[in-house]
Amino acid sequence: MNNLSIAKQGAERPIGVFDSGIGGLTVLKELIKTLPNESFLYLGDTARVPYGTRDKQTITNFSLDLVNYLLGKKVKALVVACNTISATCLEEIKRISPVPVIGVIEPTVEYAVKNTKGKKIGVIGTRATIRSQSYEFRVKKLDSEIKVISQACPLFVPLVEEGLFDSPATRIIAEDYLKIFKETEVDTLILGCTHYPLLKDLIQEIMGDVLLVDSAQPTAQILKETLNQKSLQSSNINSSVTVYLTDESIQTKKIINFFLEPDITFDLEKIDL
Amino acid sequence: MNNLSIAKQGAERPIGVFDSGIGGLTVLKELIKTLPNESFLYLGDTARVPYGTRDKQTITNFSLDLVNYLLGKKVKALVVACNTISATCLEEIKRISPVPVIGVIEPTVEYAVKNTKGKKIGVIGTRATIRSQSYEFRVKKLDSEIKVISQACPLFVPLVEEGLFDSPATRIIAEDYLKIFKETEVDTLILGCTHYPLLKDLIQEIMGDVLLVDSAQPTAQILKETLNQKSLQSSNINSSVTVYLTDESIQTKKIINFFLEPDITFDLEKIDL
Repeated sequence: MNNLSIAKQGAERPIGVFDSGIGGLTVLKELIKTLPNESFLYLGDTARVPYGTRDKQTITNFSLDLVNYLLGKKVKALVVACNTISATCLEEIKRISPVPVIGVIEPTVEYAVKNTKGKKIGVIGTRATIRSQSYEFRVKKLDSEIKVISQACPLFVPLVEEGLFDSPATRIIAEDYLKIFKETEVDTLILGCTHYPLLKDLIQEIMGDVLLVDSAQPTAQILKETLNQKSLQSSNINSSVTVYLTDESIQTKKIINFFLEPDITFDLEKIDL
Repeated sequence: MNNLSIAKQGAERPIGVFDSGIGGLTVLKELIKTLPNESFLYLGDTARVPYGTRDKQTITNFSLDLVNYLLGKKVKALVVACNTISATCLEEIKRISPVPVIGVIEPTVEYAVKNTKGKKIGVIGTRATIRSQSYEFRVKKLDSEIKVISQACPLFVPLVEEGLFDSPATRIIAEDYLKIFKETEVDTLILGCTHYPLLKDLIQEIMGDVLLVDSAQPTAQILKETLNQKSLQSSNINSSVTVYLTDESIQTKKIINFFLEPDITFDLEKIDL
């Protein structure tokens, strides 16, 4: 078998996408739109979500469980559709993975750095993401003149999961979290958590004329380029999406509908890690 | 060795107390107060908290991990200091435990049933606790004439863990959750989650002249009675408290201070299950 046919054989394998829970579905949605011929296996650790409040060791242990599960399914690439995991242990994942690994932070930072006009970028995320300083580090690597202001927003995930996208309580909490970005006059704000795009309208209203950047679209672009570079694009017109969850409470099923559009069809499977 | 000396030997063993996270420290605090000669091993599964949003199978699997850990430490009794676990899988725990198991629901219900004047009891708790209908079932078993009104309050745990005991946002959310109890005119309200006592002042202010019942004191009383019945009381004046956590982020350490008084001394140990 020559190299091209090996690549072609590999190209029909699915892409593994994983997240601490179901927030990564905001990324999956964009991946499906950008790469309609690809099949996706999405793994959400709904039994142990959230990761964003935990320490580095726990997040790393849990994440490697997810990686090993998907590698066992013979995926051709891995997308870490979770800012907390990308911020905490991307290097550890890359070290054990024989297939390309794409995190959400690098693509998102590149996009934000390209688009900031006043060289002042804000970042919001979970406690673990902000504590890691991953965004700040990557921004500075690309342009050391850019100022980065960061703020953990730990209540945004539970508020989104309760469907309170624009309730008075969510507004009060959001105004409090975002205050610092108005004071420091950032012109670009990175939504550094896959849940936050569901609060985009509210955040935009509070922040006014500020560019909001989420991870979905930049990550989909980088995945596309990576598959092209490695000749791993699928030409399968019968692509499929499977969502694996480690817990499927009634509430989980309800929340999935916040994240995926009704025209996306997928199989849902409960698994144990 | 006669029966009495076996009992005495057993009596010096510690009591195992466990919870999905650190909310159960509100119960531990009362246990220490009521039984000052006892040693306690508290195990909080901070790596996988919260349990209250998950399905029955996940909660049961996780809970049995905790039980097995404490049984391995040769505890003489187990206190399930978590309403979600007590509501979901107390029977499964009792089945595998060779030592007495005390949940928080039975003692709390007994106290509430004894004290309701208008025979209308409200219950608040996590989604899993409310879904289980454990409180309703136990109240009806004691007095079928009592009306029980239940309401899940999923945002209370994250709000407490952020220390927002009386913020405007917490107030708005609490007023919304508690509305049903004002409409139905309950005279007694069970705080069916170990985090909720930290919102007691706010809940009392909203509910007015309603008796609030939390699990700590009734559970401590039943534990005391159980130890007496089985001649398992310790007379150790050098009793100790050890807190085992499965994750110890900076935030976790901060939250512990919300739950335990500064005059309680304990050893803190990070463990893997």
